[in-house]
Amino acid sequence: MIYLDNAATTRMCEESLRVLDEANRERWFNASALYREASEESKRVKEARDALSSALRAGGGEIYFLSGGTEADNTALFCTRKGRGSRVIVGEGEHDAVINPAKMLKEQGFDVVFAPIKPDGGIDEEKFAELLTPEVSLVSVMHVSNETGAVNDIKKLVAMTKKRAPKAVFHSDGVQAFGKIAVDVRDLGVQLYTLSSHKIHGPKGIGALYVAKGAPVRPFVYGGGQEKGFRSGTENGPAIEAFAAAAERAVKNLKENSSKKRTYLEYLRRGLAESGVDVVFITRPESSAPHILTVAFGGVRGEVLLHALDARGIMVGVGSACSSHRESRFKSLLGLDEAHRDGIVRFSVSEFNELAEVPVVVAAVKEETEKLREYARK
Amino acid sequence: MIYLDNAATTRMCEESLRVLDEANRERWFNASALYREASEESKRVKEARDALSSALRAGGGEIYFLSGGTEADNTALFCTRKGRGSRVIVGEGEHDAVINPAKMLKEQGFDVVFAPIKPDGGIDEEKFAELLTPEVSLVSVMHVSNETGAVNDIKKLVAMTKKRAPKAVFHSDGVQAFGKIAVDVRDLGVQLYTLSSHKIHGPKGIGALYVAKGAPVRPFVYGGGQEKGFRSGTENGPAIEAFAAAAERAVKNLKENSSKKRTYLEYLRRGLAESGVDVVFITRPESSAPHILTVAFGGVRGEVLLHALDARGIMVGVGSACSSHRESRFKSLLGLDEAHRDGIVRFSVSEFNELAEVPVVVAAVKEETEKLREYARK
Repeated sequence: MIYLDNAATTRMCEESLRVLDEANRERWFNASALYREASEESKRVKEARDALSSALRAGGGEIYFLSGGTEADNTALFCTRKGRGSRVIVGEGEHDAVINPAKMLKEQGFDVVFAPIKPDGGIDEEKFAELLTPEVSLVSVMHVSNETGAVNDIKKLVAMTKKRAPKAVFHSDGVQAFGKIAVDVRDLGVQLYTLSSHKIHGPKGIGALYVAKGAPVRPFVYGGGQEKGFRSGTENGPAIEAFAAAAERAVKNLKENSSKKRTYLEYLRRGLAESGVDVVFITRPESSAPHILTVAFGGVRGEVLLHALDARGIMVGVGSACSSHRESRFKSLLGLDEAHRDGIVRFSVSEFNELAEVPVVVAAVKEETEKLREYARK
Repeated sequence: MIYLDNAATTRMCEESLRVLDEANRERWFNASALYREASEESKRVKEARDALSSALRAGGGEIYFLSGGTEADNTALFCTRKGRGSRVIVGEGEHDAVINPAKMLKEQGFDVVFAPIKPDGGIDEEKFAELLTPEVSLVSVMHVSNETGAVNDIKKLVAMTKKRAPKAVFHSDGVQAFGKIAVDVRDLGVQLYTLSSHKIHGPKGIGALYVAKGAPVRPFVYGGGQEKGFRSGTENGPAIEAFAAAAERAVKNLKENSSKKRTYLEYLRRGLAESGVDVVFITRPESSAPHILTVAFGGVRGEVLLHALDARGIMVGVGSACSSHRESRFKSLLGLDEAHRDGIVRFSVSEFNELAEVPVVVAAVKEETEKLREYARK
């Protein structure tokens, strides 16, 4: 098996698996209960919070645990203070967890505008600037594109926003950034930042929202008042601990893993380029995160190629795994010609991938695209 | 260790632990991805849904997985169709996951009224009937009280509601009912029913909402359109599988475990009654779920007794673990006299408790209450 869909989800690392099982067996108490064992688990949750906070350099702000990246994005979009009918700017290439709440805001009467992206999937900064007005109440631009790996210069976008839209809250979805590139939320200047555990070899069903000091955001989920009143629901202590373990590991090994992933994708890029396959490279390595290489093959449908590779034990993505309907929205944004528009394939790696896989993948892609083009010709 | 706070959370059973670890190691793929391994996990999620559906006798309706009971309750309260300013009836003794969303609805201009409870924690049916009008859009009454174990006659309340408030959606929080008493959602006639995994020896961070066919409820969380569009966010496949394993086990062993728990609490009740301790029994065994016995000790603060018992390795609850602030709201509702009002303690058991614990608990309660009363006298 060659797994190249790490932007969709990742295999849990041994450390995180061990912590999860151990916590579920030994520290399963309700962290809000009053006896010693429960306080012990509450302390572990606090330690996990501190670990995440230091990994993000979030000192002064708060980390709130919640059910995952989607809930964090929903909280940012729905629960920030927004004047009636005010403007909300959302990147055109955002994940559906931002796009769909934004569409709801539009239905509710907000002036929702979508900031255009460039052919590599990154935000077009000039066009972004033109959308900024004093009436903007919220900006949501992802740190790294889940579709192409493009890294947005969030620090610059925040500075532009502060100048022209001083009332705006700036949220960034960092699901594909945290654990892949260095993240310093205070340096970025964002007020809200979304994290997900299962994209960094932690368990599913857990994520976090960073909230800068004083950011005007209310809770999304109400109830028993856990997470300092910001996110109700019994603390998922075991998953929180396992998330923190995965995060600490990811940050510790960031440089080494990043260089490993870049090398892998450079080889893959070169292999594909030299193989004679008709391919357009969407991801620009100089402005992308280390783990994603998105390409468009000519005369082949991405989904068909996906199944052909799957039959050979190679798993790839075709844009966001979250919604097949989504993919069609995205592909029209990248300025691809007719021949390549339907051939988008995303290769996304983790430190568990090995360089020896590359020639196998290149050969498989070459053979399968040739076969598929031949079928198409018949 | 004698754990008597199973209404707060439960120890995971071996079956559920095994499924969780196995799924996290072997079936961690994104269930919405398109390759074979992902479809395999998607099939497992479907099987889990079918298992829950048959456990609840939910045929015809839908089971949607989400992050837990609190999110399910929030969905029921916030996302059902409600005419502007219409009436919302919520049991006075509901969990904070219902009470606090209801308070938000009140702020938003809905006519939120709280249905009074009787001294045993169950809904006062006559007073409930008086609140029903044709303008009621939503009723939320829990199946079993988390504070006292009182079982509400939901079928009867639904019938009353259908007659006098035909437009109302009926939601019931079944977090303390499912896996403890027989639940047949179609027989109950509810349109929405909340389930939680970690109260029945499954993992934390996963729950479900039953939605009857045609119930007017929209999603709470927006994004990639998972769970048939009802609950976005990467499917937490491993936790879903482990939840279903716990649910199947709970339903299979329901009768046997129920009788075991009832016997345990009968012994405890008799032991406390015969020990000479000043105690009022709040839970009425003839109208309560098998796993909760809530009492009020005289001249002793529940929280102080909790810590004294904790020091002896016995863990109990003082009302809902979810909020210490909550407890004070509840205790004033039960009609207790001054001497007992602050002495509420909740003993809640699971099939993992053993009868041999009872005399140890009774002796500890007797000694500690005597000690505490003596201190108080000094």
